[in-house]
Amino acid sequence: MNLVLIPPQENLSGPWQIHEPRQVMHLREQLNLQVGDTLKVGILGQARYLTRVMTITAQSIEVMPLQQEACPKKLPVTLIVALPRPKVLRRLIMDSVTLGVERICLIHSYRVDKSYWQTPFLQQLDDYVQLGLEQAGDTIAPEIQLYKRFKPFVEDILPGMIQPERPAYVAHPYSAQTMPINISHGCSLIIGPEGGFIPYEVELMQKNGCQTYQLGSRILRTETAVSYVLGRLFS
Amino acid sequence: MNLVLIPPQENLSGPWQIHEPRQVMHLREQLNLQVGDTLKVGILGQARYLTRVMTITAQSIEVMPLQQEACPKKLPVTLIVALPRPKVLRRLIMDSVTLGVERICLIHSYRVDKSYWQTPFLQQLDDYVQLGLEQAGDTIAPEIQLYKRFKPFVEDILPGMIQPERPAYVAHPYSAQTMPINISHGCSLIIGPEGGFIPYEVELMQKNGCQTYQLGSRILRTETAVSYVLGRLFS
Repeated sequence: MNLVLIPPQENLSGPWQIHEPRQVMHLREQLNLQVGDTLKVGILGQARYLTRVMTITAQSIEVMPLQQEACPKKLPVTLIVALPRPKVLRRLIMDSVTLGVERICLIHSYRVDKSYWQTPFLQQLDDYVQLGLEQAGDTIAPEIQLYKRFKPFVEDILPGMIQPERPAYVAHPYSAQTMPINISHGCSLIIGPEGGFIPYEVELMQKNGCQTYQLGSRILRTETAVSYVLGRLFS
Repeated sequence: MNLVLIPPQENLSGPWQIHEPRQVMHLREQLNLQVGDTLKVGILGQARYLTRVMTITAQSIEVMPLQQEACPKKLPVTLIVALPRPKVLRRLIMDSVTLGVERICLIHSYRVDKSYWQTPFLQQLDDYVQLGLEQAGDTIAPEIQLYKRFKPFVEDILPGMIQPERPAYVAHPYSAQTMPINISHGCSLIIGPEGGFIPYEVELMQKNGCQTYQLGSRILRTETAVSYVLGRLFS
């Protein structure tokens, strides 16, 4: 936790209360926070601040803002990813948010088990986003959208995301060309499920304006591929 | 599992037995493998092969090699990383091996809790390496070395790993310069613990020939940083 993220506040001059048991416990027990210490606090959807700790009780911590700080910039990326196994979903969302993607689309694909769409983990996306923002020191949550049908997404939604200066790249092991490196524009990045997209899906994405690129001869797990490709695309 | 890794074999013309319960269960239950199917099999430390499935029982699967296949190349990288929390260790080793690093050094650092060195997970490194190789389709395990004392490692071991064409890069948030991108030579890559290296440690590494680079204003988890930086360094 490199920032304590709290809900939107009416009073922007403080004081503010940190109530969430996870945060209070972490600050008290792991970081041994004391009255008078400074603490980085972010207000969800708004700014981040350096604050001073005023009071500490078992249930809450009161802080006063000292000065506003700059939030890290987002990456100009829409991440479009086949819904992974529930176990992997938490890490995938958290890491993508930490890395700063602007928008995340979770999509269906032939090799996505239909049961994944029933997982209670999908009700906890806001929690995963919060963990990712707190890791990165960011306050602005990316938009997350769910598309449970592949073909309507690719035919009706995806083309609207593609522009000459904002292409869509599909990571696909059988492409002849290698994923670009160090680009100077935004993009949509499309990552398939375990086992990959099926040929029909790859063709449909190509027909609808996507470019396919391989990532070398090693087959990466979804969440590894996301950070590997983002590191490669943006300097 | 994109390859079934089996121990070194005396008879390189086959047949070979797959005995490991994890592998047999996965092939039978997840992949529904049948006699006559082809299967990618790697022999640890040797080559990988396309094989044909000859017999399947509850305890073992017999395969015959059809043809040898190329292994993916390693990245010319020695990954030097502060020992992470036990929970993170498995994913860190697995991902690093999947990405193809040649050698991994787990080192101590001021912010590494000493109890981490007692974790039973350190006895299971070979298992994590195997999972990483099976994911990547590789057969060659990287060397893994443990250095429980920071200063002797940095002063006595690290300088021997540094050459003009094989520099050592430390990921350090307070460096003015940004991590290189798309390099054409090997390197050692040094990643700190949660909370980062302390100033004394950074200075000692610099004195001993390391270059420090930042990764932008977002603070990444150790395992995210590894794949992010490797994607950036090598095209």
